[in-house]
Amino acid sequence: MNTAENKVDAGVLAAVLTPVDDALAPAVGPWIAHCRRLLDQGCDGLAVLGTTSEANSFSVPERLALLDALAEGGIPGGRVIPGTGCCAIPDTVALTRKALEIGAAGVLMLPPFYYKGVGDDGLFAAYSEVIERVGDAALKIYLYHIPPMSNVPITYRLIERLIAAYPGTVVGIKDSGGDFANMTGMVDAFPGFRVFSGADTFLLPLLRAGGAGAITACNNVAAHLSVRIYADWRGAGADGDQQALDAVRDIVLKFPLVAALKEIVANATGDDGWRRQRPPLETLTPEQAAALKAELAAIGFTARMAALEYLDDGS
Amino acid sequence: MNTAENKVDAGVLAAVLTPVDDALAPAVGPWIAHCRRLLDQGCDGLAVLGTTSEANSFSVPERLALLDALAEGGIPGGRVIPGTGCCAIPDTVALTRKALEIGAAGVLMLPPFYYKGVGDDGLFAAYSEVIERVGDAALKIYLYHIPPMSNVPITYRLIERLIAAYPGTVVGIKDSGGDFANMTGMVDAFPGFRVFSGADTFLLPLLRAGGAGAITACNNVAAHLSVRIYADWRGAGADGDQQALDAVRDIVLKFPLVAALKEIVANATGDDGWRRQRPPLETLTPEQAAALKAELAAIGFTARMAALEYLDDGS
Repeated sequence: MNTAENKVDAGVLAAVLTPVDDALAPAVGPWIAHCRRLLDQGCDGLAVLGTTSEANSFSVPERLALLDALAEGGIPGGRVIPGTGCCAIPDTVALTRKALEIGAAGVLMLPPFYYKGVGDDGLFAAYSEVIERVGDAALKIYLYHIPPMSNVPITYRLIERLIAAYPGTVVGIKDSGGDFANMTGMVDAFPGFRVFSGADTFLLPLLRAGGAGAITACNNVAAHLSVRIYADWRGAGADGDQQALDAVRDIVLKFPLVAALKEIVANATGDDGWRRQRPPLETLTPEQAAALKAELAAIGFTARMAALEYLDDGS
Repeated sequence: MNTAENKVDAGVLAAVLTPVDDALAPAVGPWIAHCRRLLDQGCDGLAVLGTTSEANSFSVPERLALLDALAEGGIPGGRVIPGTGCCAIPDTVALTRKALEIGAAGVLMLPPFYYKGVGDDGLFAAYSEVIERVGDAALKIYLYHIPPMSNVPITYRLIERLIAAYPGTVVGIKDSGGDFANMTGMVDAFPGFRVFSGADTFLLPLLRAGGAGAITACNNVAAHLSVRIYADWRGAGADGDQQALDAVRDIVLKFPLVAALKEIVANATGDDGWRRQRPPLETLTPEQAAALKAELAAIGFTARMAALEYLDDGS
């Protein structure tokens, strides 16, 4: 779904994987092709350079270059919500400015995540400093609540203060905390605030509760299911599609997430290079890869479904 | 204590605070002066750009500039062990190369700390990639085990593999996990491996158990006590000094650590600018500052003790 300015602000977004070449540098060609495939599959938007993208394993210059490559590759900025939140304010500012430069619909902003146990005052000051330094009324920030990785939760009190101080700038959140009540609580507490689930499981329930959609890793390989759910979430078929999506997710989560998704994309595209990850993340072992394939096949989910071809036979 | 090449590899190191100016940029002058004061107080070395230094709140260009400033400011590289471990391998490589360029005694290297639950294979690959890219036989790495912040522990199995693969390069560890048995276990398991405590509390016990020393935040303000313990750890006075050090630490830890230490340095130097921190860290409230001062005064620890003047009256 797009706003009047043709900027995505709801729906199904993929937390886009980043392929790397044999020198472990971002593989721009396969990446752009993957972005195109996801849009062709019906994704409303692309959350590039997030957790699933291994963004924090890339330097700021590498991330800036990827955002430039996206624009040069013809991916519309309005369909993109890049991750820009770093531990250091100048890094977050540089990435956020670049996102605005390529016309991004918004940015997904992690809090500074090295220090634990910091207070809301400190997190407010950090977000505030970034917003003031960027100084652009076009900026739309989606906060990123992902305690399993960041260990720095985004509290309701912080959201309330940020919305009050920067209305029209702090516009939503991606909640990867896995607690559905936290998501619906925000929908209820902050009218107009766009709440995205970071887990596929909550796509349908959150839409029914007034949420904005989902930004998920599994959309790299199962976007067709999410897209169908979002297109007709009031319809009779939505529950069945959500169950099918959950089944894929349940299998993928038995393995290291990024590795499992890259394995599926490698199988779908026939490009073995997709299996690479930048350390510390690791490629699946051959045994894991075989187990993943067998489990997915058992639920009728094949590599072809993850590739573009599934569109051709109407599945 | 210094090696033949006059490079610190044991003893008392301060996890050096980084002052910032009113634009939140590193305040180089006061920083260099603080480094000199710590060496004058008897610190064997300076662990700059670590957790207490707010290193992860500074961009890589800012950190590179600080290392250059250290050299230009006349601080001997051989007395310095900078933190260089980042989430992204190219960043760690750039900082480590700069550390070598200024003649640093070694580097303190966090594992990539964004992704949690990564395996030893992935962490080995990350350290390995950095070592290969830096490609310098002069490199000495101290691993950094600080689960409370990184949530990425350094296991014995990982240490064993790294020592086997890179003998002479992976030479020690700073253990900020707070588990004394983990420290002594490493001393016993890896002969010659230099184990530093990240907590003042274990300085004396770890020296007695064969450890290398301590790299701590409280050494910014209480180095005179640590120095005395290290100079005569077999002596009769060591236990009393360790108790005095513990008393300071116990008080400081009632407050946010970096803020409390900056408050003490501000009082000791008369430079109010020392109280500033880059968000998300926060300055103490006036109430906290008063409570800290009162508690320290109650154990006879005054601002003067943290400053250089204490040397003059032999206290």
